[in-house]
Amino acid sequence: MILGIDIGGTNIKFGVVTEDYQLVKSWSIPTLSHRDIAEIIDDMIEKAREIQAEYHFDRIGIGTPGDIDSERGICHRAGNLPYNQTPLAAMIRDALNVPTCIANDATAALYGELYAGAGKAYQNIIMLTLGTGVGGGIAINGKPYLGSKGYGGELGHMIIHYDGLPCPCGLRGCYEQYASVTALVRQIKEAIAAHPDSLLAKIGGESPSARDVFSAKEQGCPVADAVLEQYTRYIAIGINSYEAIFQPEAFIIGGAISQQDENLLAPIREKMRKPNTLLTSSLKNDAGMIGAAVVATVFLQ
Amino acid sequence: MILGIDIGGTNIKFGVVTEDYQLVKSWSIPTLSHRDIAEIIDDMIEKAREIQAEYHFDRIGIGTPGDIDSERGICHRAGNLPYNQTPLAAMIRDALNVPTCIANDATAALYGELYAGAGKAYQNIIMLTLGTGVGGGIAINGKPYLGSKGYGGELGHMIIHYDGLPCPCGLRGCYEQYASVTALVRQIKEAIAAHPDSLLAKIGGESPSARDVFSAKEQGCPVADAVLEQYTRYIAIGINSYEAIFQPEAFIIGGAISQQDENLLAPIREKMRKPNTLLTSSLKNDAGMIGAAVVATVFLQ
Repeated sequence: MILGIDIGGTNIKFGVVTEDYQLVKSWSIPTLSHRDIAEIIDDMIEKAREIQAEYHFDRIGIGTPGDIDSERGICHRAGNLPYNQTPLAAMIRDALNVPTCIANDATAALYGELYAGAGKAYQNIIMLTLGTGVGGGIAINGKPYLGSKGYGGELGHMIIHYDGLPCPCGLRGCYEQYASVTALVRQIKEAIAAHPDSLLAKIGGESPSARDVFSAKEQGCPVADAVLEQYTRYIAIGINSYEAIFQPEAFIIGGAISQQDENLLAPIREKMRKPNTLLTSSLKNDAGMIGAAVVATVFLQ
Repeated sequence: MILGIDIGGTNIKFGVVTEDYQLVKSWSIPTLSHRDIAEIIDDMIEKAREIQAEYHFDRIGIGTPGDIDSERGICHRAGNLPYNQTPLAAMIRDALNVPTCIANDATAALYGELYAGAGKAYQNIIMLTLGTGVGGGIAINGKPYLGSKGYGGELGHMIIHYDGLPCPCGLRGCYEQYASVTALVRQIKEAIAAHPDSLLAKIGGESPSARDVFSAKEQGCPVADAVLEQYTRYIAIGINSYEAIFQPEAFIIGGAISQQDENLLAPIREKMRKPNTLLTSSLKNDAGMIGAAVVATVFLQ
C-alpha cells in the first residue's frame, strides 16, 4: 500500500491507497499555515506515524502547492505555505523510514486522473484545477509535461486580458483572476451588491459560496444565471486558447467545484470554439491523495 | 541533396539544400493564390522539374500554411490557399518520381531552427513566426509537438483580450490580431492618421511597412517609438503566457521582421515577466526552405 499526502493551504489530507489506487481510509489535519514550516511538518510526521502504526505502506507520495523540485525533493517556495528551500522529501523519509517523493499538487492531481481517473483513456490531456487559483497540468504522450525547469505548467497565469485585473504575479489579466473559485465568489459578491433583492442575495448572504450560485440558478434566479454565464465564458476563453495551443484529446476540470458536473460543463461546452471532450475529475476530492500515491509509484520506480 | 519548397500566400520558394542543411541555390515563383489549386501545383511541378534537370535531389520536403496531415500527405484546408483535401505529397512525388513529404509551414520552420538554426542548442523551445498571422511551433524534448490531431500548435490563436479585436477564426482577441506584422502595419496606419505631421507619416506615406516604423524610430520619431513600444508589449504578453505554460529553454522569433534583431528583441525583453533566452531565427528568410528540407529528412527516415 501507499500513503498519499495532499498538502493544502487549509488542510493536510492523508490517504492509504492500494496498488490499484483505491482509497482505503483517509484522515485530515488543519494546516495552520501561518506557523513555522518546521511545526507544520512535525504535525504531518506525527499523523503519518499514527497511520503507520495501523497500516503498512512501503512508499509515500506528497502533493503540495509551490515550485517543487521533485528530483531533489525540495520545496523552493509557495504562495500560501512558508517553504524556503525546504527538503520536505528527506524530512518525511527520515522520520518515517519510508521512501518518499514530492510533486506539485496540480501535477499530482494530473497523475491521479491519468492513471486512476477520468484521463485513463487518453494520452494528451489538459487538466484545469479550479480553486483558490487555477492549477494546471499538461499530459503529453501519457506523461506530465513539467517544463524545462521542472515546475510544471502554470496554466492559471496565461493572460486573457492584457489590461485586465491585477494578479499577485505582477502582471494583469491572468486566467486565474477570472476562472478560479476565488474569482467566482468575487463575481457573486458583485452581483449580490448590484441586486440585493435577488434570490442569489437571499441564499448567499454575507459570505456566499460557489455552491450558492448553482442553487440559486436551479431555483430560477436570473442574477445567478447571469453570473454563471459570465463565469463559464471566462473558463471557456482559457479552454479555447489551450485547444488552439495543444489540441488535446480531452480537458478535465478538477477542484471541489467539479462536483457540479454537467451544471458546470454544459455552459462551458456551448462556448467552445472547437468541439472536444470536456470532463470533470473522476477522483473529485480524493484526487490529491490518489495523485500523490501515483506520484510515489511512478517516481520511485 | 534535398529540395525544400516553402509555399506562401504570395510566393513559392524552392531551395536546393545539402545534407548538412546549407542552402546551395534558391528560386521563387509567384503563387497567384486566387487560381485553382491544380494550376498552382502545375506551376510548382514545372519549376521543380527545371531544378531537377540541373541538380540531383533524392527527396522533397514541402512547408505550407494550413491544416496539414503529414502522415497521409494531405492539405485539408488553409486560410490563404485553395486546398480542399488536396493530396499534395502524392501529386508532387508522382510528377517528379522523388519521395516527398509535407508539413505545416510553421512546423517546418521550427524543424529548421531546431536542426540547423538558432534552436540547435535546445530541446524545449517556442518559436513564434510573425507575418500575415502569427505561426507557431512548440518543441518538447527535441521534437515538435503537433497535438493529438497532428495539426500543430496554433499559437496565434491564444486569446490575449477576451473582448478584443475580432478574428476570422470566429473569436475575439486572438494573439495574431495584435502581434502579427499585419497588425503592426494596422497600428502604424492608425498612428499616421493620428499624427499626419510625424516623421513616421513622412517615411511611411500611404502604404507604410514594418520596416518604416523601425527607420522612423531610429531617426528619433516619438510616434514611431510609441507604436513599437505598444507592439512589443503585445508580443511580450503572449511570450509571458507561453513562459507560464511551457517554461521553455528559449523563445525564437521568426518571420521577415526578425531581421530587425535587437531593435525588435530588446524592447520585448524589457517586458518579460521572467528572464529567458529570446533569439531571432538564424535562418531568416531561408527558414521555410531549410525547414522543409529538414522535414524531408526526419519524416522520410
